[in-house]
Amino acid sequence: MEGRAGKPIRCRAAVSRKPGEPLTIEEVMVDPPMPHEVRIRVICTSLCHSDITFWKMKDPPACFPRILGHEAIGIVESIGENVVEVSVGDTVIPTFMSDCGDCLDCKSKKSNLCSKLPFKVSPWMSRYESSRFKDLNGEVLYHFLFVSSFSEYTVVDVANVVKVDPLLPPNRACLLSCGVSTGVGAAWRTAGVEPGSTVAIFGLGSIGLAVAEGARICGATKIIGVDVNPEKFEIGKKFGVTDFIQAGNDEVKTPSQIINEMTDGGADYCFECVGMASLVHEAYASSRKGWGKTVVLGVDRPGSQLNISSHEVLHSGKSLMGSLFGGLKAKSDIPVLLKKYADKELQLDEFVTHEVSFEDINKAFDLLIRGECLRCVIWMKK
Amino acid sequence: MEGRAGKPIRCRAAVSRKPGEPLTIEEVMVDPPMPHEVRIRVICTSLCHSDITFWKMKDPPACFPRILGHEAIGIVESIGENVVEVSVGDTVIPTFMSDCGDCLDCKSKKSNLCSKLPFKVSPWMSRYESSRFKDLNGEVLYHFLFVSSFSEYTVVDVANVVKVDPLLPPNRACLLSCGVSTGVGAAWRTAGVEPGSTVAIFGLGSIGLAVAEGARICGATKIIGVDVNPEKFEIGKKFGVTDFIQAGNDEVKTPSQIINEMTDGGADYCFECVGMASLVHEAYASSRKGWGKTVVLGVDRPGSQLNISSHEVLHSGKSLMGSLFGGLKAKSDIPVLLKKYADKELQLDEFVTHEVSFEDINKAFDLLIRGECLRCVIWMKK
Ligand SMILES: [Zn+2]
Ligand SMILES: [Zn+2]
Ligand SMILES: [Zn+2]
Ligand SMILES: [Zn+2]
Repeated sequence: MEGRAGKPIRCRAAVSRKPGEPLTIEEVMVDPPMPHEVRIRVICTSLCHSDITFWKMKDPPACFPRILGHEAIGIVESIGENVVEVSVGDTVIPTFMSDCGDCLDCKSKKSNLCSKLPFKVSPWMSRYESSRFKDLNGEVLYHFLFVSSFSEYTVVDVANVVKVDPLLPPNRACLLSCGVSTGVGAAWRTAGVEPGSTVAIFGLGSIGLAVAEGARICGATKIIGVDVNPEKFEIGKKFGVTDFIQAGNDEVKTPSQIINEMTDGGADYCFECVGMASLVHEAYASSRKGWGKTVVLGVDRPGSQLNISSHEVLHSGKSLMGSLFGGLKAKSDIPVLLKKYADKELQLDEFVTHEVSFEDINKAFDLLIRGECLRCVIWMKK
Repeated sequence: MEGRAGKPIRCRAAVSRKPGEPLTIEEVMVDPPMPHEVRIRVICTSLCHSDITFWKMKDPPACFPRILGHEAIGIVESIGENVVEVSVGDTVIPTFMSDCGDCLDCKSKKSNLCSKLPFKVSPWMSRYESSRFKDLNGEVLYHFLFVSSFSEYTVVDVANVVKVDPLLPPNRACLLSCGVSTGVGAAWRTAGVEPGSTVAIFGLGSIGLAVAEGARICGATKIIGVDVNPEKFEIGKKFGVTDFIQAGNDEVKTPSQIINEMTDGGADYCFECVGMASLVHEAYASSRKGWGKTVVLGVDRPGSQLNISSHEVLHSGKSLMGSLFGGLKAKSDIPVLLKKYADKELQLDEFVTHEVSFEDINKAFDLLIRGECLRCVIWMKK
């Protein structure tokens, strides 16, 4: 395989050619890595809601034809110049959050927002405004979130890969590329959930359940899930959810009123995982005056305003913060979480509800859209 | 003087009888303290903007006739039942923030919002819905912020007094009742400003200057003041302000753009001290992505919404919090600040720009309204 280093690789990729239309499995050309980049053979990838969002989206920042996918694990096939951190044959997890190790943010303990290769929804690589993908007609295929894992081979910047233990089951480890890390990290790193504390989670999708899992690991004793779907309580229990509120079910009381009663004044930590700016206020109102923290994880439409008054902020002693990638620093925190998985502290198995072969990637889309799965792992080779 | 314990005291008070009209110095009757209360002989009091706000205000929560004033120092004249914390003759600072020492909040290190005797703009005492003041016609005079210090004698709950060193100059110590504590505490306790950090302060009134003083004590190396009045830079320098932006002076760049340039990406800690919800956004935009904290101290009209989008919160890694009484726990933190003053670490002298006798209390109002003073101390007896 090393014989292909420095040359384009012809392989299969699932290409998103038009918004909302099934991906097509095609032969594509994957260029060799540029300096600071690595080419990876993808072992498996899993489907995240952001893939669906950008697959459906008709206007920019959506663009087509594009190779989606950003939760994955793979083996380094070849490396570009100046790459010393990983070697050919290493097992790596790609991440949409860069961790260059060099900028003020990457060097600070307080930030996970690399300023050298900042997060953005770009059609290109993270370091260069160019693509490593072409179809057989020579047309450029765009990248997605610096990862583009719906391809047998992909090219990723070395700032966007984390070297991991090759003995880990790949269909578990890949989840830490995005969704599970985001949720667990939000409880662990962004909020700093403490033992014995109370937690309220708005939205029990994969991210919300991962927040519950993170809060459970941190020792929270009451974890209240809020969701419109009452069936979420059963699945939630697997991840530590102790109490459940069916949103919209109580005609008199709002979820925040119920949470205030259940927790004798508000939850210590509240998480908005739905992506509705209006729910941020409900989460904020559910948090304990004096010290409650509200963490925003859900992605709403650009421009959605928070309906929080300055009086509430001033008089409540509460704080509000966002969490991108759960506040995790990819290169140092993902190995910690994988160790917790190996030590049976962190549950990952329960997130994987489906597994399909690469040819059936469109089935994974159907399952996630219909709400029938948490994570569907897509194996590049069965 | 102890002979009057248990009986009403007839003394002089400055009564606010109608919105915006000069206070009248009148003889009033001050009832003895109820259980858990203390009656205090006021030594001196200083004027704060909140006094003016509620003096001008025509509608509730304003009410008349009222005895305003909430920054003061005095001597305990008599104590009610169940008061063990202070004795007759003790020097005390009254505070509008209760610190009962008993509730979950007072026992927690994380909160300064007493839940047993919560902060509110009430016409009564903090523990009982009743007044200790009457005029000579028997008409009830309302309390203000649980303190009502514009009177030779006042009654305050024991949860609202802090015992202090009697040797401190009273015309300095009284400032810690409200304004200076609020500003210094916001930098010290709420934000936790760290040595070497950068700070931006919107509004260099007394509170903003006290924030600067707090940031200076905490070791901030760059303290940027923002104000419409360019003269504020000179006074700001006394309290550690190192840089100044005249708001509205640059036709191209907003203060947040200038601050981002000056600090290479945003200030570590930003403070909104003006009380304009729209400025909260400007402060938020001035704070460093990844770790910037924005603290709201200014009081805007009830209902003023913050114009911050959920995307900004999610993608910035910034946090937003309010600060009431600077996050200070009155009984433990005020003595620490007074010790810092005695040790010449905390500057208080520079805040006192004027001193008047009680008869001239309306001059203090004029001075503060015209923006000609920071703090005017009003001496009950010259
Ligand atoms: Zn970086
Ligand atoms: Zn994702
Ligand atoms: Zn209390
Ligand atoms: Zn005040």
